[in-house]
Amino acid sequence: MDQRPSGELSALLTDLYQLTMAACYFDQDMHAEATFSLFIRQYPAQRNYFVAAGLSEVVEYLETLRFTEDDLAYLGSTGLFPGRFLDFLQGLRFTGKVQALPEGSIFFADEPIVEVSAPIIEAQLVETFIINAISLQTMIATKASRSVQAAAGRPLVDFSLRRTQGRDAGLKVARASYLAGFLGTSNVLAGKLYGIPIFGTMAHSYITSFPHEIDAFRVFARNFPTIATLLIDTYDNISGARHAVTVAQEMEARGQRLDFVRLDSGDMAAISQEVRRILDDHGLGYVRILASGNFDEYKIARVLADGARIDAFAVGTKMGVSADAPYFDIAYKLVRYADQPVMKLSTGKVTLVDKKQVWRWFDAQGAMARDTIALRREAIPGGTPLLQPVMANGRITGPRPTLSECREYFQAQFARLPEAHKVLKDPTPYPVSLSPGLTELQSRVVQQIRRRELGENGNYGTD
Amino acid sequence: MDQRPSGELSALLTDLYQLTMAACYFDQDMHAEATFSLFIRQYPAQRNYFVAAGLSEVVEYLETLRFTEDDLAYLGSTGLFPGRFLDFLQGLRFTGKVQALPEGSIFFADEPIVEVSAPIIEAQLVETFIINAISLQTMIATKASRSVQAAAGRPLVDFSLRRTQGRDAGLKVARASYLAGFLGTSNVLAGKLYGIPIFGTMAHSYITSFPHEIDAFRVFARNFPTIATLLIDTYDNISGARHAVTVAQEMEARGQRLDFVRLDSGDMAAISQEVRRILDDHGLGYVRILASGNFDEYKIARVLADGARIDAFAVGTKMGVSADAPYFDIAYKLVRYADQPVMKLSTGKVTLVDKKQVWRWFDAQGAMARDTIALRREAIPGGTPLLQPVMANGRITGPRPTLSECREYFQAQFARLPEAHKVLKDPTPYPVSLSPGLTELQSRVVQQIRRRELGENGNYGTD
Repeated sequence: MDQRPSGELSALLTDLYQLTMAACYFDQDMHAEATFSLFIRQYPAQRNYFVAAGLSEVVEYLETLRFTEDDLAYLGSTGLFPGRFLDFLQGLRFTGKVQALPEGSIFFADEPIVEVSAPIIEAQLVETFIINAISLQTMIATKASRSVQAAAGRPLVDFSLRRTQGRDAGLKVARASYLAGFLGTSNVLAGKLYGIPIFGTMAHSYITSFPHEIDAFRVFARNFPTIATLLIDTYDNISGARHAVTVAQEMEARGQRLDFVRLDSGDMAAISQEVRRILDDHGLGYVRILASGNFDEYKIARVLADGARIDAFAVGTKMGVSADAPYFDIAYKLVRYADQPVMKLSTGKVTLVDKKQVWRWFDAQGAMARDTIALRREAIPGGTPLLQPVMANGRITGPRPTLSECREYFQAQFARLPEAHKVLKDPTPYPVSLSPGLTELQSRVVQQIRRRELGENGNYGTD
Repeated sequence: MDQRPSGELSALLTDLYQLTMAACYFDQDMHAEATFSLFIRQYPAQRNYFVAAGLSEVVEYLETLRFTEDDLAYLGSTGLFPGRFLDFLQGLRFTGKVQALPEGSIFFADEPIVEVSAPIIEAQLVETFIINAISLQTMIATKASRSVQAAAGRPLVDFSLRRTQGRDAGLKVARASYLAGFLGTSNVLAGKLYGIPIFGTMAHSYITSFPHEIDAFRVFARNFPTIATLLIDTYDNISGARHAVTVAQEMEARGQRLDFVRLDSGDMAAISQEVRRILDDHGLGYVRILASGNFDEYKIARVLADGARIDAFAVGTKMGVSADAPYFDIAYKLVRYADQPVMKLSTGKVTLVDKKQVWRWFDAQGAMARDTIALRREAIPGGTPLLQPVMANGRITGPRPTLSECREYFQAQFARLPEAHKVLKDPTPYPVSLSPGLTELQSRVVQQIRRRELGENGNYGTD
C-alpha cells in the first residue's frame, strides 16, 4: 500500500523548495485551503490558441500521490527535515478539488487550464508535476493541431520518437498528436499503452543491407503486403520509383496492392510530381505518396502551395519538440489562501486573483466568438462555462473520457474556431475579456497589497 | 527473468519499422554482423562543439534488452507478425559490441559518438532508443557547458524541471547539466537517483500565503537557517531587500548567517547593484545574490557584461529544453554489413562508411589542436584514440565511470579546448579531417553504389 502504482509517478519528482516550503507551512500549522491556477501568460510567436492536453496524467498523479518509505529515507538522509514533518509526509494524500478544461479544449492566454483547491501543503507540492505534465502535452497538441490544419485533410503520422526530449516525451508526443488529429504514431509502446494506431515504413539501413534496392523492396512486399511503404530515396528517388513500380506490378500479379511509396529528401514538390507521373504512367494511380523529412506546419503548407502531390505526411522532430516554441510561459500561481484573494506584483508578471471560471460565447452559426474570464462565484448569463469539476476530496469525479473521446472533442471544438484565428502566420487575436467582478477585485487586491507591503517603508503611494 | 529490471526501458519503445524490418531480416536469414554509427551531421546555430552524455543509459538498456510476454502479446495482437518471428523475439538479447566516446568527451560534427556492431536485427532494433537517449543528454550537456562558460566560475543550479519536456527529460537534464559542471539541481528525484546535490529557494506563492512578506522570510529562516535563500521580488525588489536585511540581522543575533537573496524579475544589472549596496550598507557583505528568470548562456553573459553583481544563477527553461537548438541533426546509420562497407546517397545526407575511430592531437601546452576521423583498422601514429570499447558479447566491459568521474573528465577536457572554440557567438571552427584510408574508401564505395544501383537504368554515369 505504500508503493505508487507506477515508479514513474514518484512524489519526489518535484523541486526541493516545494518540500522546504511545505515544512514551513507545517511548522506554522498552515493547513487552510489554497487555490492555485495554472495558465499560460502569453502566446509564443505565431500561436494564437492552445489545445488543452495532459489532464489524465495529472489526475492519475494526484489520486495516487504518496511518499514511499524509500522516498522518506532519502529525504531523511538530506538532514534538512525534522522527523515530525517526515511523519506527516508519510500520511500525506491529495484530498483537494480540481476544476479543469477537458482535454481537447481550445483555450487562450491567461485562461485557467487547471485550478487546484486543497490544503496549502498538498496544493503546493504538486506544482512541479502539474506544470510539467500539462505544459508538454498542451504544447505538442497545439503544434500538432497546426500541422493537421496545414495538411488540409491529408493524414499525418507521428515519427518523432527518436528525437523527442526523452522517453516520456516520446510517449506523450504520440498521445498529444493523436489527440490533436494525427492518424497514429510509429511509437510501438505508445500504441500499446494508449491504443493508438501504429504505422511504419522502412529505413535507409534496411535498403543498404541488401545487395540491391529492389531486393529489399521485394522482401518487404512479400512479408508485409498489406502495409508496404517503400522508401525510394536511398540512392535516387527516380530510380527508386522505377524499382517500386516493378515491385508493385509483381504485387498486382499476386493480387496485392502496394500502399505507399515514401519520399525523404530533395525538392518535395518537383520529386512528388515526377514520382506521381511515373506511378500513374504504369497504372498505379492507387499507390499513394508519403513524405517525411523535417516536416512541420510551415513546410507542409509550403510544399502543398508549391504543388506537391503528397497524400500523407510523416511528421517528426519539429513537431515532437515543438521546435519553433519548445516551451510555454506557463505558471501555477496561488490566487486564494484562507479565503483571501492573493497575488504577486513582480514586474510584468501579474496574476489574475481568486477562483475563476471561463465563459465562452458562440455566434449564430455555432462558431466561437469570444471568451470572458470571471470569478467562479460570478453569474455570467448566456455564456458556456468551460472549466469542469474533475476531482473532489482527492478522488476523480465520474468517468474520465477516453483518448478517442478527447480526440473527437478536440475535432468538434476546432471546427468551431474561425479560420482567421487558425492561420499559421499572423493570426487574428481571439477576443478574451475580464468580467466586471474580476476586474474590480483585481484592482482592489493590488491596492491592498501596495498599502500593506509597500506603504510600510514609505516608498510607494497607494494609487 | 522475463521482465525488464525497469518498466521504463521497454523493448517496445521503438519505431514500428524496426520490428517490420527485423521480421524481413529474419525471413531472409540475415544474421550477419552490422555496424551502425551514431553521429551529428551538423552544428546548430552558435554551436561549435558537443559534450557526449547519455551512454550509461544506453549500455543499461542494451544489457537488459528483452521482450516481455506482455510485449509479445501486444505485437501478436497487431496481426502483423508471424508466430515464428515472435518466438525469435522472445529469445532475443543484445549480443554485440559497442565502442563509444566516454561521457563528458568533447566532440565535433561527423565524429562517431557510438558504434554498435551486432547481428543486424539486434543492431537495428535499438536504433530509436540509442538516438533518443544520447541526443537528449548530449544536447543538454552541450547547452549547460555553454552556461557554465558564460558564468565564469559562478555556480549554476538547474531549476528546469517544471518546464522540461516530460518527466524523463526532467531527470536527464538534471544529470546532464551536473555532468557539464552545474553545482546541482532543484529536482529531488534526480538527487535521489543520481546522487546530485539538491538546492532550493522559495516560491512567490509561499510569500503571498503569509500576511506579510517579512513573516514568510522569518519562518523560513527559522526552519532552514543553513540553506535560506530569500526571494525578494514578490512585491518589490527593494522593499524585499530591506525585509531580508531585517531577517539577516535577526539571524545574526541567533549566531546564524543568511546565505542568499534571490532576484527573479526586472533589470538584473541595476537591481543587483542596488541590492548589493543595501546588503553591504548593513554589514551583510557575506549574503550572496542568486538570480533566476529566463537565464541561459546569452542572458548570463549579458547581465555580467552590464555589471550585474550576481554570485550564482538558477538556470531553468531555456537550458532545460535547449531552447535555441531543441534538437540535433543526429543519425544512426548502417556503415558496414556482412563485411562490406555501405552507405546511402540521398541528397545532402552522405554517411561516412565502415567502422571508425577518432584520433585527437594536442599542442605542446596540452590544448586540443585537431581531430582525424579514420577507419578503425587504420594505423594513425601520434594521435590519441577517443572511442573506447564499452560492451562486448552484449555485456558491459569493465567498471563504468560514476557520474562524478564523468563530470571531472568533462572539466579536464573542457579546460583543454581553446577559448576561440568556446565563445558563445561565432566560434572558430575546430579542425576535423578525414584520414587517407577513409577518404579513399568513401570515394570507392560511392562509385561502386552508383555503378550497381544507378547504372542499372542508365540514368547516371559512374563518375
